[in-house]
Amino acid sequence: MPHLNENFLKLEKNYLFINIAKKVNAFAAANPDADIIRMGIGDVTQPIARCVIDAMKKGADEMAVKETFKGYEDSGTGYDFLKEAISGYYKSFGVDIKPEEIRVNDGAKSDCGNIVDIFGDDNTVLITDPAYPVYVDTNRMNGRKVIFADSNEENGFAAMPDSGVHADLIYLCSPNNPTGSVYTEQQLKAWIDYAIKNDAIIIYDSAYEAFITEEGIPRSIFAVEGARHCAIEMCSLSKTAGFTGMRCGYTVIPDELCAEAGDGSMVKLTDLWGRRQGSKFNGVSYPVQCAAAAVFSEEGLKQTAENIKYYQRNAKVIADALDEMGIKYTGGKNSPYIWFKCPNGMGSWEFFDKLLEEANVVGTPGAGFGKNGEGWFRLTAFGDAERTKEAMERFKKLKF
Amino acid sequence: MPHLNENFLKLEKNYLFINIAKKVNAFAAANPDADIIRMGIGDVTQPIARCVIDAMKKGADEMAVKETFKGYEDSGTGYDFLKEAISGYYKSFGVDIKPEEIRVNDGAKSDCGNIVDIFGDDNTVLITDPAYPVYVDTNRMNGRKVIFADSNEENGFAAMPDSGVHADLIYLCSPNNPTGSVYTEQQLKAWIDYAIKNDAIIIYDSAYEAFITEEGIPRSIFAVEGARHCAIEMCSLSKTAGFTGMRCGYTVIPDELCAEAGDGSMVKLTDLWGRRQGSKFNGVSYPVQCAAAAVFSEEGLKQTAENIKYYQRNAKVIADALDEMGIKYTGGKNSPYIWFKCPNGMGSWEFFDKLLEEANVVGTPGAGFGKNGEGWFRLTAFGDAERTKEAMERFKKLKF
Repeated sequence: MPHLNENFLKLEKNYLFINIAKKVNAFAAANPDADIIRMGIGDVTQPIARCVIDAMKKGADEMAVKETFKGYEDSGTGYDFLKEAISGYYKSFGVDIKPEEIRVNDGAKSDCGNIVDIFGDDNTVLITDPAYPVYVDTNRMNGRKVIFADSNEENGFAAMPDSGVHADLIYLCSPNNPTGSVYTEQQLKAWIDYAIKNDAIIIYDSAYEAFITEEGIPRSIFAVEGARHCAIEMCSLSKTAGFTGMRCGYTVIPDELCAEAGDGSMVKLTDLWGRRQGSKFNGVSYPVQCAAAAVFSEEGLKQTAENIKYYQRNAKVIADALDEMGIKYTGGKNSPYIWFKCPNGMGSWEFFDKLLEEANVVGTPGAGFGKNGEGWFRLTAFGDAERTKEAMERFKKLKF
Repeated sequence: MPHLNENFLKLEKNYLFINIAKKVNAFAAANPDADIIRMGIGDVTQPIARCVIDAMKKGADEMAVKETFKGYEDSGTGYDFLKEAISGYYKSFGVDIKPEEIRVNDGAKSDCGNIVDIFGDDNTVLITDPAYPVYVDTNRMNGRKVIFADSNEENGFAAMPDSGVHADLIYLCSPNNPTGSVYTEQQLKAWIDYAIKNDAIIIYDSAYEAFITEEGIPRSIFAVEGARHCAIEMCSLSKTAGFTGMRCGYTVIPDELCAEAGDGSMVKLTDLWGRRQGSKFNGVSYPVQCAAAAVFSEEGLKQTAENIKYYQRNAKVIADALDEMGIKYTGGKNSPYIWFKCPNGMGSWEFFDKLLEEANVVGTPGAGFGKNGEGWFRLTAFGDAERTKEAMERFKKLKF
C-alpha cells in the first residue's frame, strides 16, 4: 500500500454531522415510535421556488436537443449569464464585483476546502473557535498549523484579532455558523486592517448573508474598505435559495489579489485557483446553473425572500422560547442559527442526549465546533414552522 | 500574502485545452469567415436521451414540493437508487461491485484529481506517457515524484510495467485517452501483478469503457483477477451518456483496500476517502442523480447505445480516411479517439497549426499529452457526422 497522508489519521474519525446522524439513527432504531424533530444539521426544508425549478427544466430540455445541447463549459468557471446575475445581486446591496471575479462552484464547502491547495503548507491558519469544522479539517489534512481566535460569551461569540498574534490565512464567517453572531462594519474593518498588516488573506464565508436584516451589518466583506486587497469571499445558494440538494455556490477573488512567484513575476490568485480548478474540476451542471440564475431574477428573489422570512419566523419562535426560559443565546436575528447556553451548566453532548431522549429533538452540540462551544448548543430555524413550535414546547417541558 | 504552493508555479501555466482554446479563438477572430470544425477537445455533441432528461425534470419537480424536497444527501456518496443502478450496470458485463463500494461524484476529473489527497506526498507516481494531463498536474501540485512508462509506436501505445522500476501509485486509462489504445485482459493482469508486487495502487480510468466492442478487452479493471486488492476505478457518464455538461461520474473503491494506520490499526481506503469528501464535497445535485440513474434503465441504455454507435461511425470515417492516406494510427476501434502520426514527420504543434490554418480543423497536438506524443496527433469522433466527413475531406486535400 502507498504511504497514506498521515495528517488524515490525526483527524477526528468522522465529520461532526456524520457522528450526529449515527447517534440519531441508533436512537430512532431503538425507539421506532419516537416522533423525532430534526433541528441539527443546517439544512433547509422549504421547497425551491417554482420559477427556479422551471428554469432548471428549461435548461434540461436544451440538453435533449442537438442545437441547444451543452457539453463541457469552456471556462469551467460558470456561464456568463450566471456570473452576471450574481454580479447584479452584489450590486443590489451596493457592492461592485465584476463577473470575471466570480467563479461558480458546486457549493461553498468544496471551495472552502479546496482553496487552500494554492497556498503553501507552511502558512499559519487562524480560525475562530467555535467554527464550521470544514475550516479546521481541511487545513489539518495538509498538515498546516491552525491557531484559534476565541469567540465566547464575553465577546458575544464574535472573536476579534489579537495584534500580538501572526496569521497568514484567516477564516471568518458572518453571519456565523454555528453561533449566529454577526460582524459589524467596524469589526470587519478591524479584521481587514489586521490582515493587511500581516500580509494575510481572509477567507470569508458569507453563506448566510441573505438572513441579514439589520442596518450596518455588511452582507459581503467587499462592502468594507480594504477588503479587495486581502479577502476571498465564498457564498452559496444553499441557504439563500434552498440549494442544499441542488449544489451551486460562488467564490469571489478580487483582481487586486496578486502574489510574487519564485521568479519575481506577479501571479494573480484567481489564475492560480483557475489552474487548480482546471485540473480538478469541470464546472457546474448546466441545468443547475440555469436554476441558479433564476434565483436572481425579480420573481426568483421575491419567491426566495418568502422562504427566508419563513425561517426567520422560526428563529423568532426559538428565541422567544429561550427568552421565556431565561436561557442566554446569540443569533436568531440576522441568522438562521440560535446558539444558546445549555441549561443548568450541562455539557453540550450531555444536553444533546437529554434533548434527543426526552424531547426527541435533534440539535447540534456546541462542543462539536471547537473548545469554546463546550456548554453551548445550536438549533436551526430551517425546519417546518409547526414542528419548530412543537419542538420548543417539548423543550420548555424538560426538567433540569 | 501567504506563501503560495510553489508546486503550482512549476506547472505549465495553463491546462492544455485552455491553451488550444486560446489559439483557436485567436484564429477565429482573425478569420471571421473560416468554417472551423472542432475535433480537439473530447467533448460529445449528441443530445442526451429523452428518457434521461425526463428523469431529471421529474427530479427537479420534486424539489419544488415540500413533501418530496431533497436537501443535503445524508451520505454525500450518492443516493442508493443510483448506486444500485451502477452496480447493476457492472453486473451486466459480469463484474460484481457492491453499491456500498460506489461513490457518486460530479465527474471523473474531480476524483482523479482529488483521490491523491489521501496518500502521502512521498509516494512515487507512475503515469503512462502520453496521458491525460490531469494525472500529471494533480500530482505535481502536491510535489510528488512522477515517473513515466513509455507508450509508443513500438508497443502500440500500450505501455507495460518495468519490473526494475518501483512505483506506489499507478495511473492507467483504457480505452486510452489520448491514444485510443486498449489493454487486453492479459496486459491488465501484468499491471495488477506488478502493482501487488510493489504494494502499489492502480488508479484506473475507465471513462471510455462504453466504446469497447471487442471480446477480451475488459470494460472494468475489476473484470481481471486480483484487481480488488490493488485498484480504484473511476468512470463517468460524460462519454457513456453525453454528461459532459451534466456532471456525474463514479468511483469504485473495493472493500479489500485497507492500509495500516500509524497506530497499527487498519483503515479502509474508502473511509479515508470518505473523510476527505466529507470535508470538501457535498454530493451531486439530486436531479442530476435522477438523470444518471435513468441512463442505466432499459430505455436509457438503448437510447445511449445509439449515440455511442453514432460516434463509432465517425471513428470509422476518420480511420478510413487515414487508411486511404496511408497514415499510421491507433484507436478508433473500442475508442472515440484516433491517434495518428503527423504526416511527413511534422511536429505535433506544427501540424496543429497547418490543420487549423489550411483545413480549419481543430485537433489536439500529441505533444500536449507528454513527450511520447510529439509527432502524433489526436482527433475525436465526438463531432457531428457530416462535419466529421467534411473535416476528413479537407484533411485529404492538404499538401505536405
